[in-house]
Amino acid sequence: MAFHNRMTSTVFVLTDGSRCLVREAVASDVESIVALLVDDPLGATRESSDDIAAYRAAFEDISSDPRNLQVVVVHEDIVVATLQSTVIPGLARAGALRAQIEGVRVAAAWRGRGLGAALIGWAVAAAERQGCALVQLTSDASRVDAQRFYTRLGFTASHVGFKKQLGTTT
Amino acid sequence: MAFHNRMTSTVFVLTDGSRCLVREAVASDVESIVALLVDDPLGATRESSDDIAAYRAAFEDISSDPRNLQVVVVHEDIVVATLQSTVIPGLARAGALRAQIEGVRVAAAWRGRGLGAALIGWAVAAAERQGCALVQLTSDASRVDAQRFYTRLGFTASHVGFKKQLGTTT
Repeated sequence: MAFHNRMTSTVFVLTDGSRCLVREAVASDVESIVALLVDDPLGATRESSDDIAAYRAAFEDISSDPRNLQVVVVHEDIVVATLQSTVIPGLARAGALRAQIEGVRVAAAWRGRGLGAALIGWAVAAAERQGCALVQLTSDASRVDAQRFYTRLGFTASHVGFKKQLGTTT
Repeated sequence: MAFHNRMTSTVFVLTDGSRCLVREAVASDVESIVALLVDDPLGATRESSDDIAAYRAAFEDISSDPRNLQVVVVHEDIVVATLQSTVIPGLARAGALRAQIEGVRVAAAWRGRGLGAALIGWAVAAAERQGCALVQLTSDASRVDAQRFYTRLGFTASHVGFKKQLGTTT
């Protein structure tokens, strides 16, 4: 199947009246996205803005793959939120496509104004246009607020998420 | 980055002495894989071997994408287990690649002989060769045995897995 994920930019108005634009990320957004990844209780331990070349290379991988989409929310040319969406083909569920969301981050100063809900809503609508039957994501068990947020947006906490680090002796 | 995921077939010997082969799936394996998906407490409610064309189309999508890999375990030409692995590029974790495993199924008659552990071990080794820093998967909260199994294999149940169905009114 030919597969294209180019999505349209959308303006939305937050609960406080601020206007934001959600759009696909471009290469010049990478430093701003990394700043959002670093400014996070878990990210602080595993991200490093010193190694920007590694992030730039990863962005090239994402933007050259039609099944991967890096999304940003911009307010007056400042990146204030981001996520990544990956369309995964699969045999399960009668050959359904699923969209997987990773790396959802909203700048601390921008929380509580409906921006995260607008961003996830955009990603869910994009997944629907891409023909996905399912959107899935995992949230670290310590992110209790995030879990309430996803439940409010109609997600079901039906699964246990497992991770295994590679290349370490643990 | 040029990306290839062609993996070598591997023979392994189960705890009862049976010899199995783990290899990439080919189109002629699709019906056998669907039979494994249907023969499952959760799969029974959402899979249908009547619509084999949908599964064949999904298999074409998987096998034509270098980041997606459908794996089967074969014993004397019979498919006895399967999983799918998807390599996901990402900005998080300093631009790390991660492998995501979906749709792990072992035929009921073949459980308890180390086959699942060998299959997951093969997928983890494949992810390592593909340059992944992380392997992840989710397991339905009702699959308590599966969760013990993944913990035993060195996975950490650190996350909550959320799903949202699309195209329905719920």
